Amino acid sequence: MNSPIRILIHGATGRMGQALLRLASGRDDLQVVAAVSRGKPAQRVIDRLPYFALSELHGVPAFDVAIDFSLPAGLDAVLALCVERGVPLVSGTTGLAASQQLALDAAASRIPVLLAANFSLGVTVLGDLVERAATVLRAWDCDIVESHHKHKLDAPSGTALALGVRAEQGGAQPRYASLRAGDIVGEHTVQFTGPGERIELVHRATSRDVFAHGALHAAVWLAGREPGRYRLRDML
Amino acid sequence: MNSPIRILIHGATGRMGQALLRLASGRDDLQVVAAVSRGKPAQRVIDRLPYFALSELHGVPAFDVAIDFSLPAGLDAVLALCVERGVPLVSGTTGLAASQQLALDAAASRIPVLLAANFSLGVTVLGDLVERAATVLRAWDCDIVESHHKHKLDAPSGTALALGVRAEQGGAQPRYASLRAGDIVGEHTVQFTGPGERIELVHRATSRDVFAHGALHAAVWLAGREPGRYRLRDML
Amino acid sequence: MNSPIRILIHGATGRMGQALLRLASGRDDLQVVAAVSRGKPAQRVIDRLPYFALSELHGVPAFDVAIDFSLPAGLDAVLALCVERGVPLVSGTTGLAASQQLALDAAASRIPVLLAANFSLGVTVLGDLVERAATVLRAWDCDIVESHHKHKLDAPSGTALALGVRAEQGGAQPRYASLRAGDIVGEHTVQFTGPGERIELVHRATSRDVFAHGALHAAVWLAGREPGRYRLRDML
Amino acid sequence: MNSPIRILIHGATGRMGQALLRLASGRDDLQVVAAVSRGKPAQRVIDRLPYFALSELHGVPAFDVAIDFSLPAGLDAVLALCVERGVPLVSGTTGLAASQQLALDAAASRIPVLLAANFSLGVTVLGDLVERAATVLRAWDCDIVESHHKHKLDAPSGTALALGVRAEQGGAQPRYASLRAGDIVGEHTVQFTGPGERIELVHRATSRDVFAHGALHAAVWLAGREPGRYRLRDML
Repeated sequence: MNSPIRILIHGATGRMGQALLRLASGRDDLQVVAAVSRGKPAQRVIDRLPYFALSELHGVPAFDVAIDFSLPAGLDAVLALCVERGVPLVSGTTGLAASQQLALDAAASRIPVLLAANFSLGVTVLGDLVERAATVLRAWDCDIVESHHKHKLDAPSGTALALGVRAEQGGAQPRYASLRAGDIVGEHTVQFTGPGERIELVHRATSRDVFAHGALHAAVWLAGREPGRYRLRDML
Repeated sequence: MNSPIRILIHGATGRMGQALLRLASGRDDLQVVAAVSRGKPAQRVIDRLPYFALSELHGVPAFDVAIDFSLPAGLDAVLALCVERGVPLVSGTTGLAASQQLALDAAASRIPVLLAANFSLGVTVLGDLVERAATVLRAWDCDIVESHHKHKLDAPSGTALALGVRAEQGGAQPRYASLRAGDIVGEHTVQFTGPGERIELVHRATSRDVFAHGALHAAVWLAGREPGRYRLRDML
Repeated sequence: MNSPIRILIHGATGRMGQALLRLASGRDDLQVVAAVSRGKPAQRVIDRLPYFALSELHGVPAFDVAIDFSLPAGLDAVLALCVERGVPLVSGTTGLAASQQLALDAAASRIPVLLAANFSLGVTVLGDLVERAATVLRAWDCDIVESHHKHKLDAPSGTALALGVRAEQGGAQPRYASLRAGDIVGEHTVQFTGPGERIELVHRATSRDVFAHGALHAAVWLAGREPGRYRLRDML
Repeated sequence: MNSPIRILIHGATGRMGQALLRLASGRDDLQVVAAVSRGKPAQRVIDRLPYFALSELHGVPAFDVAIDFSLPAGLDAVLALCVERGVPLVSGTTGLAASQQLALDAAASRIPVLLAANFSLGVTVLGDLVERAATVLRAWDCDIVESHHKHKLDAPSGTALALGVRAEQGGAQPRYASLRAGDIVGEHTVQFTGPGERIELVHRATSRDVFAHGALHAAVWLAGREPGRYRLRDML
């Protein structure tokens, strides 16, 4: 059996970071060798983990891939570390500045970089199907309806907009509707309506773990690749 | 403007034949030059149409493509005529004998032949999406649920089985469920269920005209092609 | 067997009027004895029907119930006739002035009057279910999503608003979303979302005939009732 | 503020028992005073809980209501205790023998008894809506489709069958279809299909906690009632 892939998790105290740590602990094929965060977690958390504060970043041991779910302000440091060590970076951090996108592009000449807004396998597949359908059904009406819990502030969701981009790449012109209700994890429907018939492409996430599972999956896939800018769909 | 494509409709008195005649009469790009059937229709129908009995088949005028929605017993005659005239054949006749499939293959060395169980554009696209999704999601559970009017006797529907073949080609192993209720024209859902998430690919037909529209569309597309065996998905 | 119920159809040349005439001709339990419209229809239509222009309204033969799908401007005349003859009135005319609503209330002391925005049986039942669900689930989020063909201008649909009133009567506070796509006849979903669970109450109309069927059904039901203002739900 | 309602949980080490203990610990209006199980839990569980083995049942302190999610073999003892103490019993135990149903009926002359297969609020409401709809739509086709995780062995689900009983009480004759896929918590659709229209009544559970929440809610409601046999729908 191969040695487990050594992972650094940046943003370890956030909601996604916590899920990553929990799910990684149940897998044999990877091992968290560094959990990094800006805010210092409770002592009992540190005691259980190979914890490093952001200021100690350069002291972390060797790792094979970094997973970043932090904030835009935190990305630069982990990106610099990955370039310095020649290690791939998976990031789900959103709201990056244009300059940070350029920095990621530049880094991609030296390390593999994969950035995504939604790491679920289903949404990745759905994006592919949407573009394919839109290519043929560009004359049909295209509607994207998304539902999320009522604490979600932005609408349409980033995932809905990303699906809309795929529909546009196929040639369709989507319109958007958003529902905010209860504790819905996330549902997206892309609907193509023509004369006398209709196609509905639906994704339902019932657990937030799918996003963490997807990020771990992407990390394993990215480890050992050639430098370059990757997208989730490249994994399909 | 080009001359309209001249069409022969075989099975003109059936439900699909009637729909084809009605929809063709509203189009400028094609013209029905021969309506053929085994049973003789009412005189008032004949008076309006360039009608020919099956026994008069060899007396029909020149045509550019034949559309056949008849019964297995009727297919041989129209196939022979198409080969003799060197004209493409579109057929939606189901329940063919294996020997007839071989005859279609043989004819395809001399004329274009396109056989399909469901001519709706949406179902054709859906088949493509199903195979694509199954390729990636082969480890997920795959279920195909179809609903049709309660007079439909076979279950699962031919379309459901055809979608199932596409799922299998992608690597999934679909199970089937069938509902027979009211006057539902036809609905198919192919569902892929994984841990914490799910994709549903749905087609709803709300009018039977979509099948006739699709057959006319296929006829226009097939006219003037090279000989060969074609599938609807080749049109995408 | 009873004599057929004699029906006057007001607004006979409109889309709903035509559907009413077509469907009524297939029933034994009712007979159209007068088809009235403001605009004069083609001679061949008149030849087949007991046709009367609006100006000839007082010359129509005896009838048991009037069905009105006209315009607000046309309602007053048929209402006056119904009161004069002591005959029930079913109306699907929308956009009435407040004064016309008062006139209907006044007439209801002398004849049965039933006014509705949507005559489908399913929507009538759905309204009932929505109010019932809202009574219990008033603390849950309530969303109403409706889809119609892209030529429909008003949004939310009148039916969606009527369902919203029922939800409010139960104690819920609905929000609305509208889709306009293809040739969708009409779909309404009322969704109640609570912690960890959700109820979706859906109505799909696949044929416009359901509205005409419902109006004929209401006319048969209303014939012979006591004077008063009735609602469709009283028929349940 | 009132004193919290004192609860005994029978079947405390089972999946539902664990969920009940976890959710009860977050509420101020109730307090678990006795956690009872047949099998002895780990010492660290006992140390945190007012734990009693089934053999010590008669030594438990005073309580206001018992919640039982055990096995048929365990019900008799807790029922006897409830009757002896004159305290209500809520039970979600399924697969009871006919003699146990009779024992519950007999006990109901002395204490309040509430037995249910599904404690979610949404399913309870849905049952009510289904019976109401079936009363009006008894001539339409009725289909019940349920989806659950692939480890569920029985099909149709107990909840589907209970919904079917409600449909039958309304006058409809439901047919059943079952899907077993992924980790679906539980989805039920009751569909009524008529000519040209359709109603779909859907419940989706996205978290198993809804069942435990519902049982706690029922316990609070049942405490202090008159003796009798109650159903969840009596709470609406």
